[in-house]
Amino acid sequence: MPQPNALRIDFASDNVAPIAPEAMESLIAANAGYAVSYGGDEYSARAADRLRGFLDTDAEVRFVGSGTAANAIALTALCRPFEAVVAHDLAHIGVHEAGAPTYFGHGFQIRGLPGGSGRIDTDALDAVLAEPDSAHHQAPGALSLTQATEFGAVYAAAHIARLTGAAKAKGLGVHMDGARLANAVAAGFDPKDLKGMGVDLLVVGGTKAGMSCTEALVIFDKVLSRRFDARLKMSGQLPSKSRFLSAPWIGMLESGAFIERAAHANAMARKLAADCGLSMAHPVESNGVFAHMTEEHHQRLTKTGWIGFRNKDGSVRFMCSWATTPAAVEELAAAIRATA
Amino acid sequence: MPQPNALRIDFASDNVAPIAPEAMESLIAANAGYAVSYGGDEYSARAADRLRGFLDTDAEVRFVGSGTAANAIALTALCRPFEAVVAHDLAHIGVHEAGAPTYFGHGFQIRGLPGGSGRIDTDALDAVLAEPDSAHHQAPGALSLTQATEFGAVYAAAHIARLTGAAKAKGLGVHMDGARLANAVAAGFDPKDLKGMGVDLLVVGGTKAGMSCTEALVIFDKVLSRRFDARLKMSGQLPSKSRFLSAPWIGMLESGAFIERAAHANAMARKLAADCGLSMAHPVESNGVFAHMTEEHHQRLTKTGWIGFRNKDGSVRFMCSWATTPAAVEELAAAIRATA
Amino acid sequence: MPQPNALRIDFASDNVAPIAPEAMESLIAANAGYAVSYGGDEYSARAADRLRGFLDTDAEVRFVGSGTAANAIALTALCRPFEAVVAHDLAHIGVHEAGAPTYFGHGFQIRGLPGGSGRIDTDALDAVLAEPDSAHHQAPGALSLTQATEFGAVYAAAHIARLTGAAKAKGLGVHMDGARLANAVAAGFDPKDLKGMGVDLLVVGGTKAGMSCTEALVIFDKVLSRRFDARLKMSGQLPSKSRFLSAPWIGMLESGAFIERAAHANAMARKLAADCGLSMAHPVESNGVFAHMTEEHHQRLTKTGWIGFRNKDGSVRFMCSWATTPAAVEELAAAIRATA
Amino acid sequence: MPQPNALRIDFASDNVAPIAPEAMESLIAANAGYAVSYGGDEYSARAADRLRGFLDTDAEVRFVGSGTAANAIALTALCRPFEAVVAHDLAHIGVHEAGAPTYFGHGFQIRGLPGGSGRIDTDALDAVLAEPDSAHHQAPGALSLTQATEFGAVYAAAHIARLTGAAKAKGLGVHMDGARLANAVAAGFDPKDLKGMGVDLLVVGGTKAGMSCTEALVIFDKVLSRRFDARLKMSGQLPSKSRFLSAPWIGMLESGAFIERAAHANAMARKLAADCGLSMAHPVESNGVFAHMTEEHHQRLTKTGWIGFRNKDGSVRFMCSWATTPAAVEELAAAIRATA
Repeated sequence: MPQPNALRIDFASDNVAPIAPEAMESLIAANAGYAVSYGGDEYSARAADRLRGFLDTDAEVRFVGSGTAANAIALTALCRPFEAVVAHDLAHIGVHEAGAPTYFGHGFQIRGLPGGSGRIDTDALDAVLAEPDSAHHQAPGALSLTQATEFGAVYAAAHIARLTGAAKAKGLGVHMDGARLANAVAAGFDPKDLKGMGVDLLVVGGTKAGMSCTEALVIFDKVLSRRFDARLKMSGQLPSKSRFLSAPWIGMLESGAFIERAAHANAMARKLAADCGLSMAHPVESNGVFAHMTEEHHQRLTKTGWIGFRNKDGSVRFMCSWATTPAAVEELAAAIRATA
Repeated sequence: MPQPNALRIDFASDNVAPIAPEAMESLIAANAGYAVSYGGDEYSARAADRLRGFLDTDAEVRFVGSGTAANAIALTALCRPFEAVVAHDLAHIGVHEAGAPTYFGHGFQIRGLPGGSGRIDTDALDAVLAEPDSAHHQAPGALSLTQATEFGAVYAAAHIARLTGAAKAKGLGVHMDGARLANAVAAGFDPKDLKGMGVDLLVVGGTKAGMSCTEALVIFDKVLSRRFDARLKMSGQLPSKSRFLSAPWIGMLESGAFIERAAHANAMARKLAADCGLSMAHPVESNGVFAHMTEEHHQRLTKTGWIGFRNKDGSVRFMCSWATTPAAVEELAAAIRATA
Repeated sequence: MPQPNALRIDFASDNVAPIAPEAMESLIAANAGYAVSYGGDEYSARAADRLRGFLDTDAEVRFVGSGTAANAIALTALCRPFEAVVAHDLAHIGVHEAGAPTYFGHGFQIRGLPGGSGRIDTDALDAVLAEPDSAHHQAPGALSLTQATEFGAVYAAAHIARLTGAAKAKGLGVHMDGARLANAVAAGFDPKDLKGMGVDLLVVGGTKAGMSCTEALVIFDKVLSRRFDARLKMSGQLPSKSRFLSAPWIGMLESGAFIERAAHANAMARKLAADCGLSMAHPVESNGVFAHMTEEHHQRLTKTGWIGFRNKDGSVRFMCSWATTPAAVEELAAAIRATA
Repeated sequence: MPQPNALRIDFASDNVAPIAPEAMESLIAANAGYAVSYGGDEYSARAADRLRGFLDTDAEVRFVGSGTAANAIALTALCRPFEAVVAHDLAHIGVHEAGAPTYFGHGFQIRGLPGGSGRIDTDALDAVLAEPDSAHHQAPGALSLTQATEFGAVYAAAHIARLTGAAKAKGLGVHMDGARLANAVAAGFDPKDLKGMGVDLLVVGGTKAGMSCTEALVIFDKVLSRRFDARLKMSGQLPSKSRFLSAPWIGMLESGAFIERAAHANAMARKLAADCGLSMAHPVESNGVFAHMTEEHHQRLTKTGWIGFRNKDGSVRFMCSWATTPAAVEELAAAIRATA
């Protein structure tokens, strides 16, 4: 049971968790002797191979230190300043990155579309794509999808293919923000399906999956990979001691922990949803719990020390991670019920 | 003795070295339990305190994952697009960062000034500052200094003060690239002098000093710190699991290793200069050896496996680091002599 | 009477009109002999003086060739990329300029606020200004007002002062888009009030007031004027043959035509509103008529050749200009009634 | 004979001249009735047709208000921020535009190449194109040529084809700054040759050729023309009353004045070179005179009131225009001789 006023941040985000053992071990193992810098090291080559195997693709892979930067770099490669990135209304790139995409991208528009639980509605996308071009507006240049979504939903493969198909038919580039791709895969999404779906640039999240600050940029479209390292360098994302960004991927992918630990996080979210007594604002499909909660209830809970954040959609969010324990879930659930 | 054709990258750069034990230990120690993200964690607070102590200042401190980004962010805070950053002709920001500063800074000019061994000549700076403004040219908006310089030289405090004094008198902002500040301090530069020298934004290098990819941004000018975290977020440099970027600083600063290990690197460079039989293109004041070497000699050396890079100034560079061993120095020196 | 299917664009916009005689005469008069370029000519000096007299201010004045650029340049001078420009939901800068402000401004956000007829609601502004800063969001950096608004409304001086006062108290810069300032003045707004209202940068429209492509940038805040010509040059808005952008202002301001012809346009709008039989979506306070009109009625009208545009707010817009004739108003009004 | 101290700016630049009669007449003729805005007007269509005829091409044409902006927009369409525009060392885009290209282009590098009288040396270009790509440097993305050059030289067609051929073979885009293309054509360059030379985007100067502020952007590469009007709008270069930027071209091209008046300017330059008694720093091939002149001589001349500017290459420049009179040439030549 939480002590009154003792801050419990376990569920505040999936980035408050430490590094998982499998990632830490390979980080430590990589700290031996000299290694070529700027991505030319053997660790980066091996990690890229493992990720290509995971995705069953021959795409190029780079490791960078920030998901915000990875998304911004990808979108900048796909969308020109006088065009718009089409994304979900509440996509992270539009509402939580302090303008990083538009800064890197020199002012392109981020145009929000509606859709349940963070998934873009296909009719809404079709309607935007059907609009005639105009010199006075930023026409769609790229589509951005998030898998799993900001509200924990997992796109079905057919839904993604439907959206990217419509986008590709109009010449748009396609970006996928996979900050929680591991959680989506643990929930049943097959990562080997991605290569045929028209995604040009994919960001696979390492940080939220249990690593240190490292994200993988997967370049499916080989035309885009020309001079990509200079693009990364210019963006402040060509790490010198690159082995320390790639090595954690080796341990996580070779051991299977990348998905197993995401599956644990998903299971903890389901348990919390089941135990807490709240009604859900969104179905629990991955590692987040988005609950209906009155402002008074939320305030009473906060006084017990447990932190959850209210989202733009009105729900209160509790995130589970690889490090979440059943005991902590039970403590939080009890506190939620006690303050109801 | 090197095996024929076995690649020896020990001296290729100071970023091919692993993480020093003191940094690794505190990185591992920080991997316990939950921690607030985005710089709000206790490790970041403690590391910032230690760095403030090291610099004897109350400046604000942030930890970011890239020196290129740190420099670009600092310059963008100081110089507007229709102005110029004045720097040494061969400064890293102008010749080795693939345009990162001008990308972040939206097109400002980087204007090169001459000066021996990477130190800016005071007369050259005075001449530029004396030019009248013109609508057709980018007038100086900021001064950028590198300590130690790209050619291993260490600025005397009076030299820095002379340059920053001239810059400040004309309203310029001042940035210092301290990617190798530890080496400059180990060579006798007093870091406590910096606070009174008119430097507005200082980047202190962690990576080359023996850490993983982490650099400290020191904000001496408090006016600049307003909304700085949003600036970092927008730039893709507000790390979520921030503890892993700040923790290494704790170990390095609290143990004294930050300077002791830089002193070792400097000593190794002096030893290499003394042993190799080459004439020096620049005095060895920190951890780099910049030698005169014919193209033929360089090629013969390269065939033995030892890597050194030829610079824009014509010299061949060998860098020492915390990890450089006397034995390796002797092996390289022998190879240089044998191929002369 | 319009011929069936003969296109009548008289009311499509106020920029389809020709140059007014007073502007054309001084343009022709300026075409004699040599003149200093880039704003150093006597015509630019005289036009700036006249505009300062009109505004009763000692502000600096520049003449540029595009209202879109003028707004973008002003906002870029006031708002940093990691901040937001706060403007009306349907302000021109946000919805009709193809991203020019965010392109020039390197990605700042344009955040829309509600308010009747294009005027920003004071409570809505207060609420935004009361939000705490966050590293993850773009906090307000500048306020942008449009006078007269995009829906023909004219702000009362007290309303402007209330909005700018709140903005200034929080350190925001203030921009005014005065593309139709002449129409606002003709409607009773006193331009001499502007200097005390906290507006830092004002764009006064010449094009829609009856000139060729020329807009005046008025720099009330002298700190901002430093190196402003280099800012203009960098923005492609420091015209070489500057006399041809400034001369039209001389004729318009010295003759009084600047306001008299705007008053005529306003009167034509009132006449159209009175004659057309439609109910108004917004009060007719300046030179635009914004009417409720069914889609069917609009299509029938369009078939007669008369062009009016449907706005984002659902109303159909007819714009009057200095060149609008009572006869044309009567013809359009008859066509609207005939197709009702 | 000039009055002592009476300022004579006739030769200061070719942009101090007024608008030529043929341009002014068609500007006035266009000021009748309503016209569609933003380039949709009949004047813009007709002027574009005439320019296509002049160039014997089916390229797309747009009219903008600034040569600086036109160049910046073209280069931004051809070169990415992590690449470099290769141009002559002293090209206008690199030294006289206050950073406009790098501002519009988000930080690409402008890399200067040597070559006599402003023409790029072919060996120097080959050498740059032969460099291997590197993640740390901005590799060539576009080639920019100026015809006639900043030093009055006129490229032979074969020289251009040789340079653009080398650039195209490496995948670079090609831009031509034709601010003084009319002078080059008057000197014998055949504009119909351009379409086969690999130039993707051409800027044809109207201002210096005797018009008001108007430049033509010729888009040879149709792929680049997609959404070009939105690109222009975003850049503040989609003029609303577009007829006034296009109409002058009609008069100049239909009458033949575009070339005839440039031929006059060229003849005046030859006369000045012949009469002034100075030795030439560059051959007089178009409308500029670039002379060797001691600082003392230049100062004595300036005291007589005659203005000429000293260039970065050390020469003193006197520009002739359509408006230059033989009498003025004789007066200036006499003053130069008298102060020798």
